[in-house]
Amino acid sequence: MMFRVTVLTLYPDMFPGALGLSLAGKALERGDWALEAVQIRDFASDRHRTIDDTPAGGGAGMVMRPDILAKAIDAVAPQGDARPKLLMSPRGRPLTQQRVRTLATGPGAMILCGRFEGVDQRIIDARDLEEVSIGDYILSGGEPAALVLLDAVVRLLPGVMGNAASGTEESFENGLLEHPHYTRPQDFEGRPIPEVLTSGNHARIAAWRRGEAERLTAERRPDLLSGPQPVTK
Amino acid sequence: MMFRVTVLTLYPDMFPGALGLSLAGKALERGDWALEAVQIRDFASDRHRTIDDTPAGGGAGMVMRPDILAKAIDAVAPQGDARPKLLMSPRGRPLTQQRVRTLATGPGAMILCGRFEGVDQRIIDARDLEEVSIGDYILSGGEPAALVLLDAVVRLLPGVMGNAASGTEESFENGLLEHPHYTRPQDFEGRPIPEVLTSGNHARIAAWRRGEAERLTAERRPDLLSGPQPVTK
Repeated sequence: MMFRVTVLTLYPDMFPGALGLSLAGKALERGDWALEAVQIRDFASDRHRTIDDTPAGGGAGMVMRPDILAKAIDAVAPQGDARPKLLMSPRGRPLTQQRVRTLATGPGAMILCGRFEGVDQRIIDARDLEEVSIGDYILSGGEPAALVLLDAVVRLLPGVMGNAASGTEESFENGLLEHPHYTRPQDFEGRPIPEVLTSGNHARIAAWRRGEAERLTAERRPDLLSGPQPVTK
Repeated sequence: MMFRVTVLTLYPDMFPGALGLSLAGKALERGDWALEAVQIRDFASDRHRTIDDTPAGGGAGMVMRPDILAKAIDAVAPQGDARPKLLMSPRGRPLTQQRVRTLATGPGAMILCGRFEGVDQRIIDARDLEEVSIGDYILSGGEPAALVLLDAVVRLLPGVMGNAASGTEESFENGLLEHPHYTRPQDFEGRPIPEVLTSGNHARIAAWRRGEAERLTAERRPDLLSGPQPVTK
């Protein structure tokens, strides 16, 4: 089964973007996964191709209309399409490596990219969109967030990464930040590689790395050590 | 003073990417900000343009060499360059809207994008790189993260956003997720716009929105209500 992604966007030219280069891009060329970016304005019904309107109750900005988004979603992901329907939104559930892994084992995704003030709440409810946030900051739209989510997922697809092993020892995969790395030269501006790493003692090296990972996590991200946050979908 | 960004990367073609379109792209064309992507391999010293080597102490993947990164950093951001030197890394301090705002009021940024297993710890220490994480997931490299960070910052630069007001009422700006939005049509698939929003009573509307924002935040992100997390740089 091919991993198949459809993105609904006002800026289809933003795709594949960075996903068209590097290992993800080679996998895309080989047909290991598929990406289609669809212009939401193609589903507008007036000649100005309007897709937004002023917010009910007043306020700044514009809101994307539910009726036009419904036409777009139903066209690219009709009933029976098993792919999760995501909405990139700072109001969403924070993206985790665990969610990334689950998405990578599935059939793909339909991703709606919001712009302006956001999308009408009724399309989220009526089409059961899963709101996903990539972090606690505000972007110009959902597109950069979709590119990040897809980058994280695509690298886990079978055949995309050259060295499968490097997927398992990284930050978050074991609940800790990753230990520091060193490589040649032995001396850099008077700073040597820590002696333990050139000792050849594999048990000492493993213990040192584990200790450094724990120290870094406690220093920088005590929240990761206090167990999973309570989360409601 | 122009906001000036230099990105060190193995994939300069990934830039400006999505930042070359939409409002950020128009601002880039107008010269409201500047973006330069520099190939790290140009600072390698062998004819294969090697920039990485095996990890000291063993393990999977490759590590970017500190001596070559030092040459690249010193060339694009010599001593006296007032721009912060960022390293996109899942081990970094989580990016927040507050950090985005601070960056947007500064002179720009130098951004190093890691690939492979990571960069040698000694270049982080020797050049005082600020490690920044955009979220708790693993990307193929720092490039998609840099694009996200820049998108968040650039939209706050003077003159980039058409409607300055929409910068102030959004998620995280007041410590809450944003309230739901509604727009026309009045009836969508049997779902009406909530009555309060069409009441014309501005005080009731403001109270409803505040209540919805508080409810959503409590449901989805109780961590945002428990005050700032302890953070060490």
